[in-house]
Amino acid sequence: MANRLIEGAAVIGQSGGPTAVINQSLVGVIEGLRGYKPIRRILGMRHGVDGMIRALPFADLSNIDSATLDAVARTPGAALGSSRAKPTEADAAKIFEACKANDIRYFFYIGGNDSADTCRIVYEMGVRTGYELRCIHVPKTVDNDLVGHDHTPGYGSAARYVAMAFMADDRDNASLPGIKINVVMGRHAGFLTAASALARRDESGGPHLIYLPEVPFDTDRFIEDVKQIVGKYNRCQIAVSEGIKDKEGVEIGARLIAGAQTDAHGNVQLSGSGALGDLLANVVKERFKSPSGKPPRVRADTLGYLQRCWPEPSQVDSGEARKVGQRAALEAVNGGTDGSVAMTRKSNHPYRIEHHVLRLSEVAAKTRTMPAEFIRGHHDVSREFLEFVTPLVGELPRFGKL
Amino acid sequence: MANRLIEGAAVIGQSGGPTAVINQSLVGVIEGLRGYKPIRRILGMRHGVDGMIRALPFADLSNIDSATLDAVARTPGAALGSSRAKPTEADAAKIFEACKANDIRYFFYIGGNDSADTCRIVYEMGVRTGYELRCIHVPKTVDNDLVGHDHTPGYGSAARYVAMAFMADDRDNASLPGIKINVVMGRHAGFLTAASALARRDESGGPHLIYLPEVPFDTDRFIEDVKQIVGKYNRCQIAVSEGIKDKEGVEIGARLIAGAQTDAHGNVQLSGSGALGDLLANVVKERFKSPSGKPPRVRADTLGYLQRCWPEPSQVDSGEARKVGQRAALEAVNGGTDGSVAMTRKSNHPYRIEHHVLRLSEVAAKTRTMPAEFIRGHHDVSREFLEFVTPLVGELPRFGKL
Repeated sequence: MANRLIEGAAVIGQSGGPTAVINQSLVGVIEGLRGYKPIRRILGMRHGVDGMIRALPFADLSNIDSATLDAVARTPGAALGSSRAKPTEADAAKIFEACKANDIRYFFYIGGNDSADTCRIVYEMGVRTGYELRCIHVPKTVDNDLVGHDHTPGYGSAARYVAMAFMADDRDNASLPGIKINVVMGRHAGFLTAASALARRDESGGPHLIYLPEVPFDTDRFIEDVKQIVGKYNRCQIAVSEGIKDKEGVEIGARLIAGAQTDAHGNVQLSGSGALGDLLANVVKERFKSPSGKPPRVRADTLGYLQRCWPEPSQVDSGEARKVGQRAALEAVNGGTDGSVAMTRKSNHPYRIEHHVLRLSEVAAKTRTMPAEFIRGHHDVSREFLEFVTPLVGELPRFGKL
Repeated sequence: MANRLIEGAAVIGQSGGPTAVINQSLVGVIEGLRGYKPIRRILGMRHGVDGMIRALPFADLSNIDSATLDAVARTPGAALGSSRAKPTEADAAKIFEACKANDIRYFFYIGGNDSADTCRIVYEMGVRTGYELRCIHVPKTVDNDLVGHDHTPGYGSAARYVAMAFMADDRDNASLPGIKINVVMGRHAGFLTAASALARRDESGGPHLIYLPEVPFDTDRFIEDVKQIVGKYNRCQIAVSEGIKDKEGVEIGARLIAGAQTDAHGNVQLSGSGALGDLLANVVKERFKSPSGKPPRVRADTLGYLQRCWPEPSQVDSGEARKVGQRAALEAVNGGTDGSVAMTRKSNHPYRIEHHVLRLSEVAAKTRTMPAEFIRGHHDVSREFLEFVTPLVGELPRFGKL
């Protein structure tokens, strides 16, 4: 911990896939920094470190009125623009030139594990070159896949959207019975797909089958699962993670998307395409064919980008995203040189969290997946997972039945 | 008009693609029928006329408490089950046997233009065989494509979902600029795709291009449109109807879905597949390739079934769906023998509608498309359309910008 409140500017950036509440964290950092005289200016990176590398002008966030800040906080997407760039050593040098040129001493980066890694690279360059730069990572990811974090801002709102989507779609599916596949975001971690289980209202309600990236996906077993559910309920609603993998660990989706686009981190584009859902629907249609019987009604929806931006977020998540930003600012002004602000769950009844600060290296470029105790069998989640996720999404609509 | 309140049972059915408010209309009919002594029982068809044809037992709706009815009304999907069956003459005979066996004299069918046609077939069979059966069609369709109806219950809620989806997705797209295609429901009528225009918050905001089934779709012109928008804003958000057709009138989507499923009305399955969005995304990627430059970020989402079942409907739409059901009951108990209950718009400021009753033959199996005055050029909607749609969706979230 550095002891004094160093004079200079602060800069805030947003990175990775945006969420419905990433701007709450942005506003939280701004609010947390205000009133500290040594912090002379609050700047915003345009499109994350990419904007600093490309020398885009900063946004000046020093004097924005609170009505505007509140409206920005309620707006999905990254208000400053986001970036998927991963800085090289040459890039990091450019970032430092920009920091020095603008007398920046506080560096806040809102994002996931790749963003924590960017934060770490920038921080370590500061240490090596002897330029004091406090670097705080502010967590954000709908995937909920940060190591050492109980859960991350953005996840609760995405989980709420997924739960509401499955609730409503289950009623639609019951109206016109058939086999319905819904593909959910989450490349490595199944937390978001698992949240579909919140939609279950009674024993016969969907989702009937939940396939996570943590459990190897076997097509023959999948077809048997579907046949069993259809035999029981004359319909089947299925949650499938976009990141499901076969027993060799090869992603089912990535294998079939010809000419797939990749980002700077080498990730293949899985979202923004209906290919996986359509593939699985065709497999089901093919395997359910019988010489006499009529083929079942099979449909696939890919829930897509609305999972991360639907404009009616979880209220719990919104509040937590704001507070994590405020806490990050507090950490830096109190002398913290680097770290990632995490939430720890103190109790579930009543739901209560506390903050703690992790080392950047504990979080950076690491991926947390669903722990074994959250998974039940090969197509379901456990009661422990439901206990974990329920407080994060807020109250869900109540449905009636005849 | 028959003068007396004939004694017997009433039956209510739900048909076609469900909506977020189709149960409001069901509950509206039940409420409207209660208290009339000659109506001895209120029955519910299971899965529409399909249930009567297959002799499924009716649901007894006579004595359901109002708390349950209110909860059912707020629930998306068809609480009685829906059907896409189109009755043959032999089927119609079975329906009549069931009506006579159960002393049914009031027949309410909630659905779209195919359902109005089913209603007409049943009614005419009653006339031919001399069995008095009052048949009232209660409108329901997210497509808003009923002739003689200003708008239909279900449309406002779907339009609200589409508007909110484009609002949020536009902020996501601005965060990580690229070309984003969103495919919207609507086979023949562009009303739902057109509702995406409600998402525009300022001159640079999306959707930048809107392609309706009423305007022939030309791929070369589409690519030129996208290039122009990308040149101006460095990104492009696009609304595409699933029913876009080439200049020969062939659906772009239907042409490329191999082994497409069709329903009893001969309609090819367009929803429940990401094929059209993926095709258009691939065309854009291909045509934007340059030997030097890096390909643009192109993504496609197909909004899918959530458009018709999202569990937070438009309040205006919910109320109207309920009242249309009540009005249908009133029509029948007042002696109307057949008809379709429609809304007429009396004024826009303040928004006010009235009901009127159309002949079934005026609505049955006919499709209303976007009138010319609602369309602007080949990729936009007019101010008149915005005036038309605005009161139906309710208040939209307010976003802020830095």
